[in-house]
Parts: sequence; structure tokens; C-alpha cells
Amino acid sequence: MCVITLLTDFGTQDAFVGVMKGVIKTLAPDADIIDLTHEIPPQDIRAGAFVLNTACRYFPPGTIHLAVVDPGVGGARRPVAAKIGDFFYVCPDNGLLSHVLAEDTLTQAVTLDNAEFHLPHVSRTFHGRDIFAPVAAHLAGGIALETLGTPTDTVQTLPLSQPLVFGNTITCHIIYIDVFGNLFTDLTEERAGDVSRAVVAVGGTSIEGIADSYSLVPEGRPLALFGSSGHLEIAVRNGNARRQLRVEMGGRVTVRLP
Amino acid sequence: MCVITLLTDFGTQDAFVGVMKGVIKTLAPDADIIDLTHEIPPQDIRAGAFVLNTACRYFPPGTIHLAVVDPGVGGARRPVAAKIGDFFYVCPDNGLLSHVLAEDTLTQAVTLDNAEFHLPHVSRTFHGRDIFAPVAAHLAGGIALETLGTPTDTVQTLPLSQPLVFGNTITCHIIYIDVFGNLFTDLTEERAGDVSRAVVAVGGTSIEGIADSYSLVPEGRPLALFGSSGHLEIAVRNGNARRQLRVEMGGRVTVRLP
Amino acid sequence: MCVITLLTDFGTQDAFVGVMKGVIKTLAPDADIIDLTHEIPPQDIRAGAFVLNTACRYFPPGTIHLAVVDPGVGGARRPVAAKIGDFFYVCPDNGLLSHVLAEDTLTQAVTLDNAEFHLPHVSRTFHGRDIFAPVAAHLAGGIALETLGTPTDTVQTLPLSQPLVFGNTITCHIIYIDVFGNLFTDLTEERAGDVSRAVVAVGGTSIEGIADSYSLVPEGRPLALFGSSGHLEIAVRNGNARRQLRVEMGGRVTVRLP
Repeated sequence: MCVITLLTDFGTQDAFVGVMKGVIKTLAPDADIIDLTHEIPPQDIRAGAFVLNTACRYFPPGTIHLAVVDPGVGGARRPVAAKIGDFFYVCPDNGLLSHVLAEDTLTQAVTLDNAEFHLPHVSRTFHGRDIFAPVAAHLAGGIALETLGTPTDTVQTLPLSQPLVFGNTITCHIIYIDVFGNLFTDLTEERAGDVSRAVVAVGGTSIEGIADSYSLVPEGRPLALFGSSGHLEIAVRNGNARRQLRVEMGGRVTVRLP
Repeated sequence: MCVITLLTDFGTQDAFVGVMKGVIKTLAPDADIIDLTHEIPPQDIRAGAFVLNTACRYFPPGTIHLAVVDPGVGGARRPVAAKIGDFFYVCPDNGLLSHVLAEDTLTQAVTLDNAEFHLPHVSRTFHGRDIFAPVAAHLAGGIALETLGTPTDTVQTLPLSQPLVFGNTITCHIIYIDVFGNLFTDLTEERAGDVSRAVVAVGGTSIEGIADSYSLVPEGRPLALFGSSGHLEIAVRNGNARRQLRVEMGGRVTVRLP
Repeated sequence: MCVITLLTDFGTQDAFVGVMKGVIKTLAPDADIIDLTHEIPPQDIRAGAFVLNTACRYFPPGTIHLAVVDPGVGGARRPVAAKIGDFFYVCPDNGLLSHVLAEDTLTQAVTLDNAEFHLPHVSRTFHGRDIFAPVAAHLAGGIALETLGTPTDTVQTLPLSQPLVFGNTITCHIIYIDVFGNLFTDLTEERAGDVSRAVVAVGGTSIEGIADSYSLVPEGRPLALFGSSGHLEIAVRNGNARRQLRVEMGGRVTVRLP
């Protein structure tokens, strides 16, 4: 039984996601379908790429990650499938794999141009249903990656922001904001080294030191911590950091060592 | 392994849907349960009927579609199960099958009056849990449709709006608006014939020609296209047509041939 | 095939829930995962405890209910697993089991301190992924409860409000409000006895008698009924009782017998 995950910006009000699952179940009855999320902000490829990367490695090796955030559907962008690290990815070639490719190695990729593995009629607006779902189902059913299309040696990546180190200060950037208003930066614990006694500044607020957990500060107070994603996060205990600190995607966070 | 889909207006904040799945899993442990959506606008039978019809045929033959949008729960409306085309449907008899029946043939229907296949205690307010879920599970487990209740030869349908043709103008109607604000009309591509060079007018806005895909117009511009549902849709590229064009359900769209 | 249900306050915008499912599928490929809800109001243990109790008994005996509403994550609260009635529960020990324990008997409980059954690296902020999901998966895979940690004979319960009877009046309290704005009180049908002809008062509004179903009053009119949960509910037919009657969690409802 193969696992197929779904990540889209389709929302859950309509049956778009249900239809993709119907296509998968028709072609691969034993596939085990798991939702990552369907609430990526509409057409926000960068958010989709970040969320996909926080989740993909927690699945069994061989899992097929199907991701559709696809503002260019019906245009020139290619549909692709790739083997990266231990997992398969099926998605439009528009940068959705940027974060995954920054951590794992691409071993094989194909342009999905073999119509034999698509639905008989391919619409111009819903490749999730007509191309990506059937391709993922055929992969789950044992069809080899190279059979699904023409080999390619490039997959599109977007430039990812990087923390800047200057003297005793690291300047990093907010690259994702979760549903609780927690701010995720591009600074990973691995990259940062020991910053436990640093002063973290964001949107006019200074935070002393890096906390170990939310429960170490009073309610309503901001804190900085390396969260479950491995990235430096700014949070407000039992509150919303985005609203309280008035910062948005791309905003700067400075980490000053003592 | 039989697939059971769920479509409701229960939302996902409470555990109503989870409870229905628990009932199904208790009676049919091998059933494969797939959500179509639980965000049909509360008690909006017409929206439920439209969405059900966009999704139902993408599932394996024999799939059981369980739909509950049920403003009349506890009142006089009958619970029914039906075989229509290749699929089974289990739902209140209030018009939820109107769009499905406009396309596929009813071959068998029963009023669900055999209490042996309901939960032992049937509440007045939650037939999804007490009647529809156990009936769908028993169907999945191999109980014949005719065993579930008394045969009936009618299932309620609502009058569906139809496009009107007068001279070189087709007047059609908005019958569904999706989460992105895309407007779906009652005009299907099959019915329309070649209208690729028509002028489409909606809420004071004129659109020249029918597009092939979203990516063919600039951002923020409205377009008309036959979308993945087969219906004429009005959309705004990377925007929200409902808000931008200020139109609502039932609104008129005219298609004027050159 | 063992069923594992999930109830959290994680929302569905991020991939937190998807990640937990990935961990479960990695360790217990045959587990059948069902969502109860992920939209418990953030950190609202009481709401989580109520919703869990409305759903848990509709699942097959042996089902593992994994519940994470966890404001104290990373602090002193224990992670626990328990057998209560016919079901297993895996959750932070913060009162989430209060309503379940008011109805069913605790037969066994352990503090989850055997790190062998956690992920190799346990973060301070996401025990759902690092402790609760792997423990639930190991339980599903056949590991005995007592192997997962140190036996304990207490599980935390919160004081639950109770209806007060004084003369011919029962004063009860709103303990949950669902997505439709229906108000759930702490008065159960079992406890109430025959109150069918009582006058129910809430927020300045009086309701004559207890209804049998929503369909018995006109649209927009409030009614009182014993709903599918067995609790006295205040609803407005095809409307929102919370907004219309301007009452909130904890508010009083009086039931006066004639």
C-alpha cells in the first residue's frame, strides 16, 4: 500500500480535492491518500514550497507527494515528476520543489508528456485532476518514473532568501507565517550555531535570548525559539505574533550576539 | 474495498463528520471513506446538488455517494437510497440528486424505512449519523439496495435553470460560485456549440471571446471560459470575479454571437 | 486494521496534521486514520474535552483516540495514554479526558516516559508529532499500553459545571457552541427527566416547551431540544442562536417546570 500526499491551494469548499482523490482511487484502489493541506494561500508557490518541505520527510520512503499550486495552469509551464531523496514528487514545474531541493538530492526527473498516463480529456484549467492525480496513481501502481515522460535534468527553483552575517549580527527574513501567526525565518538552528543569549529584534520589539519552549514566558509575551521545523521562529505565547508585532512575509529579524 | 464519499454542510469545526465516519468504520471496516466537501453553504440544497454532480463520476463504479444537506431533518422528507448510472446515492429526498438525475439514469430507488439498518436509537436532528451513515456502510458491506427499504419510483428533483436562446443571444444564469469567486453558469460547452468569438456580458462588464485558459489574460482581467466542469465560467485571473463584477447566485450572463 | 482518530487545535492551513499522519503511517502502515476535527478553538481544553466525548463512542472498540490541545507543551504537564471504557486515549494530561471520564471507567493509564516509542529527537513545541503520534502508532501496531511508560493511577480532570435544581427550576450552563451557533448546555436528557412542557429562558428570550426537531418551528425562531448529543440545546431554525440571543460560553439557561 503506497502513500500519496496532497498539497494544494484549492481550499476545501469545493470538491476539487475530492475529485482528485476519486481519480486516484479509480486507478490505484490501494493507495493511501493523506492531506498535507489544501489551504496554501491561492497561487502562493513560495508558501507551498516551504510547507511541503516541513512535511515531506515524515512519511514512509517511497511516498508520492502530489503538490498543486499552479498559477500557470494551461500555459507554458511543464508538468513534472521527480525522485528527490527517498520520495517522489508530482507537480507543476514552477518552483514548488525549491525548499526540498535545497536539502535533498534530485536523482531523476521527467516532463509529464506521455498522455497515456493522463485522463483521456485534459482540460486547460484543472491539471490536478487530469494530469497530476492520474500520474501519481500510476506511480503508486508501479509504473516506472521514466515511463511517464521525457527525461529532463532541470527542475525550476526559486531564489531562496538567506540569512546575512555581519560582525556579531545575523539578519534573517520571515519566509512563512503559520495559522497561529507564528513567524518562521530563514535562519536554521544548524546554521545559527549557539545564539541562545542573543537579542532578537523584530518590528521594533526586542526579545532577550532564545527560549526552549512556549511555556517559559508569560501569556501575551513574544519569544524567539527554534521550533519544530528547525527554523528560528518568533511567537507570542497564547497570542498572535503577526498581529502583535505588525510584521509580514519578507520582514527582517536581527539576531545580535552579546 | 468499497469507496464511500461524503458531502455535507456540517463544516469541520465540530466532530459531526468524524462521528459519521466512526459509524461507517464500525459497520464496514474495509470501506474507504473520501470527503467531497463539508462546506456546502448551510442548508443550500442547490449548491450541494451542483457540487455532487461535478464530482460523482470521477470515482470507481460502485462508489457510494453519501450526501447530507438536510434542512428538513426530523420532518416529513424521506431518506432515500438510489442507483443512478454507475453509482449509489444515499441522502435525504429533497432535491440533492437534481443535477445527477439530469445527466444519468435512475435504475432503482428505495425509501429507507427498514430500521434494521439504522442505528438502534434514531435522533430527530442527526440522520447523517443515525440513518445515512449506517445505510451507506451496509451497502458497502454487500447488503442489496432493495433490502434497505421500500421500493419507490420517484426521487425529488428541483427545477433547474436553463439557458435561453433568442436570435443570436444566449441568456444563461449563475448557478454556483466557487471558493475563488469563479462564477459557474448553466450553459454547458455541449449545449453552446461554437461561441469562441462571442461577447459575454455580466454585471455591466463585457468580455470579448471565450478563452482557452486563465493564463491567456493579464492579472486582474475578467475572462470567460469553459472550465473543468464543462460549464461556461466567468473568472478574473488571479482575482475574484464575484467581488470584482458584483454579481451573485442566479445572476444573468449573456453570450452574444457576432 | 486499527482506527486512530485525531482531534487537535492545529487548524488545517499548515501541514502539522499531515506530518502527524506521516509519522503514524511510517510506524503503522495499516492504521486507518480518521479526523474528528482540527478546529478546536486554539488551546481551549474544555471545548476539546466536550467534542471528544460527543464522538469517541461511535468508533469500533479498540479505536485509539489521539487528542492534542496542548497549551502546556514543553512544560511540566505529562503526556499520557489511557484505556477508558472500550477505547484508548493518547494526549497531554491537562483535562482533555474530563468529559470522557465522567461517563466511562478508567481501567489503565501510563505516563509516556519510555523514549523508545517517541521520535529520536523530541522538540519542545510539537509533541503531537514527536510523542503522541508515534505512541498511537505503536499502540495500533500491538505494543501493550504498559510498555509505553510508567503506570499512573491519576489522570487530570477539570471541574465540570453541573445543572442546579431549585424547586421547579433547573439552572444549566452553556458548555459548548457549535459552528452553526447552536448552544449546548450541561443538562442531559437523562438527568432532566420529563421537561417537555417547561419554559426555557436564555439571554432574555423565553421558549415554550421542548421541541422534537428543528422543523417544528418557523424559520428564524428559537427552540430548545435534546439534540443528537443527548444535551439540551438551544437553536434557531435556519439561524444562529449565539448571535441572535447574544449569549456566550458559560451563559446560564433556566428550565422552569409548569
